[in-house]
Amino acid sequence: MILDATCQLDYQTTEVVPAIFMLRPRSGWAQWIMREEFYIQPQVPVVEFTDVYGNLCQRVVIMPGDFHVSVKYRVQVSDTVDADPCAQLTYVQNMPPDVLHYLLPSRYCQSDQLSSLAESIVGHLPETFERVAAIRTWVHQNIAYVSGSSDSSTSALDTADSLQGVCRDFAHLGIALCRAINVPARMVVGFLYQLHPMDLHAWFEAFIGGRWFTFDATEPTTRGNRIVVAYGRDAADVALATMFGSFTMQNMYVTVTAPPIVTHG
Amino acid sequence: MILDATCQLDYQTTEVVPAIFMLRPRSGWAQWIMREEFYIQPQVPVVEFTDVYGNLCQRVVIMPGDFHVSVKYRVQVSDTVDADPCAQLTYVQNMPPDVLHYLLPSRYCQSDQLSSLAESIVGHLPETFERVAAIRTWVHQNIAYVSGSSDSSTSALDTADSLQGVCRDFAHLGIALCRAINVPARMVVGFLYQLHPMDLHAWFEAFIGGRWFTFDATEPTTRGNRIVVAYGRDAADVALATMFGSFTMQNMYVTVTAPPIVTHG
Amino acid sequence: MILDATCQLDYQTTEVVPAIFMLRPRSGWAQWIMREEFYIQPQVPVVEFTDVYGNLCQRVVIMPGDFHVSVKYRVQVSDTVDADPCAQLTYVQNMPPDVLHYLLPSRYCQSDQLSSLAESIVGHLPETFERVAAIRTWVHQNIAYVSGSSDSSTSALDTADSLQGVCRDFAHLGIALCRAINVPARMVVGFLYQLHPMDLHAWFEAFIGGRWFTFDATEPTTRGNRIVVAYGRDAADVALATMFGSFTMQNMYVTVTAPPIVTHG
Amino acid sequence: MILDATCQLDYQTTEVVPAIFMLRPRSGWAQWIMREEFYIQPQVPVVEFTDVYGNLCQRVVIMPGDFHVSVKYRVQVSDTVDADPCAQLTYVQNMPPDVLHYLLPSRYCQSDQLSSLAESIVGHLPETFERVAAIRTWVHQNIAYVSGSSDSSTSALDTADSLQGVCRDFAHLGIALCRAINVPARMVVGFLYQLHPMDLHAWFEAFIGGRWFTFDATEPTTRGNRIVVAYGRDAADVALATMFGSFTMQNMYVTVTAPPIVTHG
Repeated sequence: MILDATCQLDYQTTEVVPAIFMLRPRSGWAQWIMREEFYIQPQVPVVEFTDVYGNLCQRVVIMPGDFHVSVKYRVQVSDTVDADPCAQLTYVQNMPPDVLHYLLPSRYCQSDQLSSLAESIVGHLPETFERVAAIRTWVHQNIAYVSGSSDSSTSALDTADSLQGVCRDFAHLGIALCRAINVPARMVVGFLYQLHPMDLHAWFEAFIGGRWFTFDATEPTTRGNRIVVAYGRDAADVALATMFGSFTMQNMYVTVTAPPIVTHG
Repeated sequence: MILDATCQLDYQTTEVVPAIFMLRPRSGWAQWIMREEFYIQPQVPVVEFTDVYGNLCQRVVIMPGDFHVSVKYRVQVSDTVDADPCAQLTYVQNMPPDVLHYLLPSRYCQSDQLSSLAESIVGHLPETFERVAAIRTWVHQNIAYVSGSSDSSTSALDTADSLQGVCRDFAHLGIALCRAINVPARMVVGFLYQLHPMDLHAWFEAFIGGRWFTFDATEPTTRGNRIVVAYGRDAADVALATMFGSFTMQNMYVTVTAPPIVTHG
Repeated sequence: MILDATCQLDYQTTEVVPAIFMLRPRSGWAQWIMREEFYIQPQVPVVEFTDVYGNLCQRVVIMPGDFHVSVKYRVQVSDTVDADPCAQLTYVQNMPPDVLHYLLPSRYCQSDQLSSLAESIVGHLPETFERVAAIRTWVHQNIAYVSGSSDSSTSALDTADSLQGVCRDFAHLGIALCRAINVPARMVVGFLYQLHPMDLHAWFEAFIGGRWFTFDATEPTTRGNRIVVAYGRDAADVALATMFGSFTMQNMYVTVTAPPIVTHG
Repeated sequence: MILDATCQLDYQTTEVVPAIFMLRPRSGWAQWIMREEFYIQPQVPVVEFTDVYGNLCQRVVIMPGDFHVSVKYRVQVSDTVDADPCAQLTYVQNMPPDVLHYLLPSRYCQSDQLSSLAESIVGHLPETFERVAAIRTWVHQNIAYVSGSSDSSTSALDTADSLQGVCRDFAHLGIALCRAINVPARMVVGFLYQLHPMDLHAWFEAFIGGRWFTFDATEPTTRGNRIVVAYGRDAADVALATMFGSFTMQNMYVTVTAPPIVTHG
């Protein structure tokens, strides 16, 4: 279906704050960006570059005062996500080199510490897509969604211990457990239609049988109708906004709607 | 100023034709993409990727019948282009590695064959920006703009011989002459406000004093108000549409206008 | 088998000459660099970087006087090259994005001008490996190897006309004909065991059925025992030495031998 | 001076173990690889690729039994490391895009948690090279080098707490403190002449005034005569050997010597 998504970010700063945004989704095999708007106010100069994960990043210098960012996307997305229970896990020796990176532990996904837990969840299963599906289900069933229960320092290890968190924590734990069984996994941030309450969302992808599959441990099932904005190893890499200085976020407003009539223009 | 640009391409094919488009401009230090629309009809799957020059490319498979592409951009651009007559040419040993590529001869820019001509144009000048300015002026004054005088096989050597061509030929000759004096030069395709008659346009950039400068050999002077869509070594790299099969282009329609009132949304 | 290759280049310059060498072969699926030596004299500073094709490049500034480069490799190579007559040509829509680049015309390979010739050679053949094999055979049988018959400006079009050339011309024509039928093709420079007379060598690779295959139009058959030093679109990209200034090459000496006894160290 | 370094790794496995080595140093502005040898036994196929940090990686599949890796380098290195007490810290807005990556927290360098400590160390100092020098000195003076006091899960936070570690822990803490004050920092693994006891070594680099500088928090001072083998965000990225399975390391032997007489060949 076609989705309209908007995100508005209102900042206030009292000093000069360099910032990096990651707010230009890219078209890919699963989504087509039909329309994209990106306004900043005041209109300061922006340098756009691509990071090591292929994300388009926007660097600005925010001057003291108010700063507003407003993006709006119209995207054709898939109503469902692919699943292939029979897909074999890819052996490390057969992975494309650019995927190997996603096997390594990272800031919030200490996969090197979670082998026992991962093994206890998937040890009895065949070496297929089923293992990642089981990890997703385990995280969904064992972690309680508690708004405000975590902060920017909370890692997968912390979540495995506290058994509570928000979407990014669910994703981190899912990713860390996948890597612990040698399945490449990466963080995705973006938008999900009919998410309640509406907000930016985070989920993960796992590399199985030669391609990436989508998994969402926060939701009861992994529904479709997602807009991917950025990929990375974990939340350290895919912050949609990174501010290098102190600021107040005065407002953040996210909408995802289905446009009533599709027109070309 | 803020520019609105549109480009509509209508194709008809009688066979399955894979095609690669290069129609997503990127924000950079000289332009900010405020809004971008990209519609294709019928809506076939698109794979987007980045080429070696950093251009966003869209690959589709066109089925027999009609195929329409329509893009629309709102871009904040600069009213003028930078010029720095005193900027020193960069020595090869001091060029950033990713610039060296633009010193090499390419399909339409046989710089290895144009040393004598280049030397005759710039030999008496200091090793500065002036040399490239002189090349631009020479091309502008010595090549006659004759619509239809060249085709897709015409190279800088041909143009130096026939002394006529269209914007892409002017750009190719400018590029080849720059490379012949060890100045990195690249082709740019995009839109120019108030171009007469309105069409897609091509010009070139040269690397001088540590940065790229814009030069347009077709126009009397190098005006501002340009939207860059893609970069490459020459037209072989930066075709906005490459079709791998036979087709009829039924219509191509380009507009560049200044929106009457700037609104945020 | 294991090969020892050496290449010695002796230059003399009367001015400061920046130069870029491309003399570090990389290990890959078809060769393993067991030992590599790279000496320059005088030992001036070297900056090493990777170009867009993945080649390791060495940039130096040669001071007036003598300059010597000496490389020596011990490489494990394959005795034969792969061939798969049944491998299907890959459709453009299924090619990996980084391969598409090798479909485009380039300085010495004007594939856009050679469609008729290519069609006449392969038109009757199935869309498989056979087509490239036929191109290789046609080039081998129709082009006369004449030392000194071409120079650094000779392109595939020239060779198709003059019907004579050296190894780089054979490779350029093979590449251009492949691209003319939408088969990605790239230039390879390196060493070939038992080449007569011994020298640096050039051949080409074509992308068929999802992988690259080796073709040598200069030799009666495409033998194994090759050391790949660099890849590119054509000779403009893969010059093993590019000098930006005037120089005299006083000596160039190449050897490829099979070491009598393989020792570890 | 010229250094000869060797590293021998002897493994024993009872199962098939995919492994990735990172054992090919690259030439750069501070080192020139004059000779390099890389032997493996048994000689299984190797796939070499470049990771996101530019390191050359070697992937192999180790079969049950013994597996030996032996590398040997002759490298021209600098006797000293550069220092520039007056170099200004680079503002985030002026950093080259590929450096920004090294500002982010990573598996072993939780810079987001170490702001207070960093501030207490450097808060009184000018925003120059001095700040990183102070971090290096602080780590060197406050962390005790205790062999065996840490393991593969030990992070900078752990080290800041336990106040003991080995070279990789010293590097991790130095890196994390740099990033905490918005100075890009990366991990380096390699060889250091006259290290006691001789072993592989780890240190860090910080990006100041537009370039990378070398810092070694383990040693009393940051001496020269280093061979860089690989770069990364932290030890997760730059393990010289990553084994995906169980194995026994039977022997690891490292030497760094100055060759008695320099010969060319």
